[in-house]
Amino acid sequence: MNNEDFLRDYLIAPNPVDDRLTRAVTGLDQEGNETTISVVEERPLTIYLNSREIVTAMTIGDYPEYLALGFLLNQGMLLPEDEVIGVQFDEELEVVVVRTAVETNHEEKLAKKTRTSGCAVGTVFGDMMEGLEGVALPDMQVRTSDLYSLAHKINRTPSLYLEAGAIHGTVLCQGARPLVYMEDVGRHNAVDKIAGWMFQESATAGDKVLYTTGRLTSEMVIKTAMMGIPVLASRSGFTAWGVEIARQVGLTLIGRMRGQRFVCLSGEGRLLRDADPKSVVEEDKKHRRKGAGA
Amino acid sequence: MNNEDFLRDYLIAPNPVDDRLTRAVTGLDQEGNETTISVVEERPLTIYLNSREIVTAMTIGDYPEYLALGFLLNQGMLLPEDEVIGVQFDEELEVVVVRTAVETNHEEKLAKKTRTSGCAVGTVFGDMMEGLEGVALPDMQVRTSDLYSLAHKINRTPSLYLEAGAIHGTVLCQGARPLVYMEDVGRHNAVDKIAGWMFQESATAGDKVLYTTGRLTSEMVIKTAMMGIPVLASRSGFTAWGVEIARQVGLTLIGRMRGQRFVCLSGEGRLLRDADPKSVVEEDKKHRRKGAGA
Repeated sequence: MNNEDFLRDYLIAPNPVDDRLTRAVTGLDQEGNETTISVVEERPLTIYLNSREIVTAMTIGDYPEYLALGFLLNQGMLLPEDEVIGVQFDEELEVVVVRTAVETNHEEKLAKKTRTSGCAVGTVFGDMMEGLEGVALPDMQVRTSDLYSLAHKINRTPSLYLEAGAIHGTVLCQGARPLVYMEDVGRHNAVDKIAGWMFQESATAGDKVLYTTGRLTSEMVIKTAMMGIPVLASRSGFTAWGVEIARQVGLTLIGRMRGQRFVCLSGEGRLLRDADPKSVVEEDKKHRRKGAGA
Repeated sequence: MNNEDFLRDYLIAPNPVDDRLTRAVTGLDQEGNETTISVVEERPLTIYLNSREIVTAMTIGDYPEYLALGFLLNQGMLLPEDEVIGVQFDEELEVVVVRTAVETNHEEKLAKKTRTSGCAVGTVFGDMMEGLEGVALPDMQVRTSDLYSLAHKINRTPSLYLEAGAIHGTVLCQGARPLVYMEDVGRHNAVDKIAGWMFQESATAGDKVLYTTGRLTSEMVIKTAMMGIPVLASRSGFTAWGVEIARQVGLTLIGRMRGQRFVCLSGEGRLLRDADPKSVVEEDKKHRRKGAGA
């Protein structure tokens, strides 16, 4: 496969050479020799919904508008049917304001703050579970040949991850085609940016696969389901609650995807094993995603 | 090194065989064969400070009292000098209440919610940076031989991570001795549990090293500094802001620690390179921490 070919699949791909997103920092290595490495930027972005300040998120800063929209949607503070009349980013103030035609008060439901998996802010946990009650994820077929192809392409896509580590990626895919690859210091930001893009583009969700480098926690599963995406896949592992929720909402959940191996713990019905696993090339070590931790 | 010897160093070590912390789940693998794997549990824990509900955290559930104390301390809602008269965990309600002698109102400062790196809740970012102004981290010497020894021991310590993946670990160390190894689905929970333990034990901080599997983000650096620990080390990478803050507060920050290699981007003055890096055994692949993502 020619490297360039599949990169043309992307509507949005990471931009590891954007010098706003990384910084060269100098220190000393194990031998006491000076070494300069590339580290990712992390900036505060304060999100407003109309006149109300909601949260300050730390982000690499590449898609503040998508992040704001997606965050508000995934928190249930903005509903898909709400009319958004403007999304305004002020680079100097590091603020983004999302304006709706009608002032909503969904955000007032945030009487209870939840930190899920140690991550998230203001997620109303009870509301999150309620929000899932209306979710009906469509049947669609996922070919394992497509999943292997996606993982192969994603692992070879130049990214901040490969450049500077310390970052998470989530990719919206269709069939064997990666479409929108978002990265950020927090995996929830990456997912939220995708949700924001889908909202702006009025993208369909029911025929998509979400691929992430992050763990398949309850929060990841909930966000994916709320976004209407029926399949979530990751190299990483699962949590028990993530699996429970996936089974509850009928999401196809695939984890520990490395080389030819994977485990499907929910939504088996969508999987079509059309590839011979033994024919899948083992991951080239240099493309193996590093143990970047969280 | 006999495996058992260093395990005796630990005051608290992970307990991967505690069947409350993992669950066996069955699904299908790439060949369509049934497979049963171990996944970590994730439970909500609602933390109260006196009569005030603060947050619900998702946790593996092993040390709810330490988590509550550490969370409140690291958020500045509880101060080291506050008198705690009780920490009560109700397993059935999944609630933990921290009671102080005098009702405080630090938590009311939480007018502004911050999600840093996509993770955290209610961190008053401005206050966090202010809280660092008073921090003076002591000079102390860190031997690279000790760092290599710690990494070696930690990688060989039986853990939920090695058992079930999808989890983060943070270890409080002294010299070449790992003392308290906490794990959780969120890396901030693991750090908070250590802070809670240190508070309960009135443990000194200035002679300790904090080792984490997670990335060295601004929030990790801030928590470590607030805990009074002068050295933070990780296998993972850095963010630019994490490095800036570390340099600002004089924290020794060591990242990308793998085998003999590491990079020190701050606080170089504490490092004593007493080991010949070339003599350090390369990591045994089977002990290499897997790319568990976040």
